[in-house]
Amino acid sequence: MRTIDWDGDAVVIIDQVALPHEVRTLRIEKVDDLVDAIVRLAVRGAPALGGAGALGAVLAMDQGAREGWDDAAVTAAIDRVRNARPTAVNLAWGVDRVAGLRHQGRDAMLVYARAVLDEDASGNRAVGARGADLLAELCGTDTPIRVHTHCNAGALACVEWGTALGVVRTLHERGHLGRVLADETRPLLQGARLTAWELDQMGADFRVVIDGAGPFLVSRGETDAVVVGADRIAANGDVANKIGTYSLALAAARAGIPFVVAAPESTIDPATPDGASITIEDRGSDEVLGTGDRRTAPLDAVALNPAFDVTPADLVTAIVTESRTIRPSAGERPA
Amino acid sequence: MRTIDWDGDAVVIIDQVALPHEVRTLRIEKVDDLVDAIVRLAVRGAPALGGAGALGAVLAMDQGAREGWDDAAVTAAIDRVRNARPTAVNLAWGVDRVAGLRHQGRDAMLVYARAVLDEDASGNRAVGARGADLLAELCGTDTPIRVHTHCNAGALACVEWGTALGVVRTLHERGHLGRVLADETRPLLQGARLTAWELDQMGADFRVVIDGAGPFLVSRGETDAVVVGADRIAANGDVANKIGTYSLALAAARAGIPFVVAAPESTIDPATPDGASITIEDRGSDEVLGTGDRRTAPLDAVALNPAFDVTPADLVTAIVTESRTIRPSAGERPA
Repeated sequence: MRTIDWDGDAVVIIDQVALPHEVRTLRIEKVDDLVDAIVRLAVRGAPALGGAGALGAVLAMDQGAREGWDDAAVTAAIDRVRNARPTAVNLAWGVDRVAGLRHQGRDAMLVYARAVLDEDASGNRAVGARGADLLAELCGTDTPIRVHTHCNAGALACVEWGTALGVVRTLHERGHLGRVLADETRPLLQGARLTAWELDQMGADFRVVIDGAGPFLVSRGETDAVVVGADRIAANGDVANKIGTYSLALAAARAGIPFVVAAPESTIDPATPDGASITIEDRGSDEVLGTGDRRTAPLDAVALNPAFDVTPADLVTAIVTESRTIRPSAGERPA
Repeated sequence: MRTIDWDGDAVVIIDQVALPHEVRTLRIEKVDDLVDAIVRLAVRGAPALGGAGALGAVLAMDQGAREGWDDAAVTAAIDRVRNARPTAVNLAWGVDRVAGLRHQGRDAMLVYARAVLDEDASGNRAVGARGADLLAELCGTDTPIRVHTHCNAGALACVEWGTALGVVRTLHERGHLGRVLADETRPLLQGARLTAWELDQMGADFRVVIDGAGPFLVSRGETDAVVVGADRIAANGDVANKIGTYSLALAAARAGIPFVVAAPESTIDPATPDGASITIEDRGSDEVLGTGDRRTAPLDAVALNPAFDVTPADLVTAIVTESRTIRPSAGERPA
């Protein structure tokens, strides 16, 4: 099933807060329930939020019709979806694409919202196929390809299939996937919770490793390629991704194995010249200094908690999108 | 105070299980209580265990005299200390050094046990001074030196002062210490718990960071030198240390900042030709797949959990011991 989809008169999502221990689907018929799901991260990941925004606009129309809202109330409901997470660009983008068709009526909006989902899904399939082709070219097809990944650039962050994990999924579908190593991805453990769940569901052979072990395992020949997603790609090929990515790129370069970034074209930002011009969000101490409700560090300790890091272009073997393969370490620029 | 010491008729230790939230000292008058403290890691770290072994032999003599044990019972008690953690070489080494003087009587044993502690303490002071001198030479003394460290090679792992953290302590004492970055050190969080506590106690300016953030922060110029301890140093200068060390070495080399290993001469093993010949212990899944009693990963997930990694000699700017400075990246061999 899709991470997010439309079913008759409701948005249906896999509740990511319940994973990996429970697969709970939420059937959402009211705008405020969708806003709540977005706020508490039951649905997350830029492409998935784009889908949530697109479907949210339709949901506002349906709920308005059922409950007799006037136009202003519908507009206000659409805005609540749009602003559920202010910094999530894809959410507003998804809302705006569909809300812009409001003059054509609800059915036209739904057709377009479905197209937004389908576009993401088919884009991911294309990323997966292109990435798997590239790995076959770089690593050969004589033996299964062992992949190391970081964080969750999987189906759960998208509508379905995934980007980095979409490449893994395509290799698995082709019978060319070896053992996968998944970094646990501190501090929020998206690797241990979400990527591990996806790998488990697809029946892949995988191991979870702490983030600090990844580079050493690369050096010991435990993997054939590193494949990660991206949060933003600069014009020169520098790649911002979840904190912890850079060390895998360093290790891959030294070991002489490919470091591949799998991401949609929309991730490439021509307005960002290079990685140094990307502002890195610091998410504060709480995520780092305790686990669950247990404080591990001394009470007056403070953390430095950058959410992303930047891998310089010369360490990036290839960036794979739905439409092309760019080789930054060979001097190619994405924009 | 010392991490472990002798007080009249008892071994006194700082209970590391209670840290960082409570500073609890244990006054141990019976052999089996010492064995228990060792088993549950209330005292840990190779040099500290050497001290525990040395004092444990004296403790067996005293308890035997009080309780009227025969020679065989005293021998059995000494053996219980010696075998409390079978793989801890320093523990047996400490016991054997002191138990070998049993024919000279209890007082001679105590004199020698104290000498074992003093030797470790003075050795660490020498490591600290030599390391601080080296950093002043490499980084200059115009501005405070910002150090990044991993795991806990501090006073808590030793009798006092520490090795890597001993270098930090000496810089602090000299007024040359800038902000320290301490990796949290998954999976057991020795950095967040123990190193953070030591830095807090000494009044240093420090931040805790996740292991995956270290290499990026090095690349962003957030630190002037990486200083770590070692579990074993091969004859060619390859260094085995807590998992996560290698990625800092890669980042330091790329950033052009010193990567310094601070460790006693006893860590250098001439019988180990290089890092490839070091067997790396895999500690199993449980430490990785959950925190506290909360399982984070899917129930049928499996972890790969190497306890140590190996940093190749060409990435090691210097190894500092109590008696010399070796520069492996410049071709010098420790043995």
